Amino acid sequence: MLNKEAINFVGLCAGALTTFSFLPQLVATFRSKSAKGLSYGYLLTFAGGVVLWISYGVLLKAPPVILTNGVTLGLLVVIVGLKVRYER
Amino acid sequence: MLNKEAINFVGLCAGALTTFSFLPQLVATFRSKSAKGLSYGYLLTFAGGVVLWISYGVLLKAPPVILTNGVTLGLLVVIVGLKVRYER
Repeated sequence: MLNKEAINFVGLCAGALTTFSFLPQLVATFRSKSAKGLSYGYLLTFAGGVVLWISYGVLLKAPPVILTNGVTLGLLVVIVGLKVRYER
Repeated sequence: MLNKEAINFVGLCAGALTTFSFLPQLVATFRSKSAKGLSYGYLLTFAGGVVLWISYGVLLKAPPVILTNGVTLGLLVVIVGLKVRYER
């Protein structure tokens, strides 16, 4: 079995990839000055899930889960902010 | 502190929401018979991250992480399959 540091490293790589794969969405929203393809229903469902993942990470004391979902939540807040601004 | 069952329940709810929020993407791909908005770069980066999350879940013995990322990986395989088929 791997030690805790190695396990956390795997988790951090996992979170880096899944969070990184979300970035083009943010770039596309910026460039097109539109977030019409992203419904509030989708964004809020996803944000709710991310908040629960952070809670799960805290309960399980799993730093990679907390850290990478924290970054994803930050990106989501930016996208929702842009959407509110562009659609006003 | 919550017991293990309660922690797993929080993780399952988290995974249900983040995986569920991914479903509209699959429905949109089916309906439009197109996955042009989803690049292979994005899909493979995301799939790589999901595979690492499953590894992390196995190493940490965290069933919700394994289960929900397993479902996400299944959805991703379907989307990639549809993309290959539609763009041939």
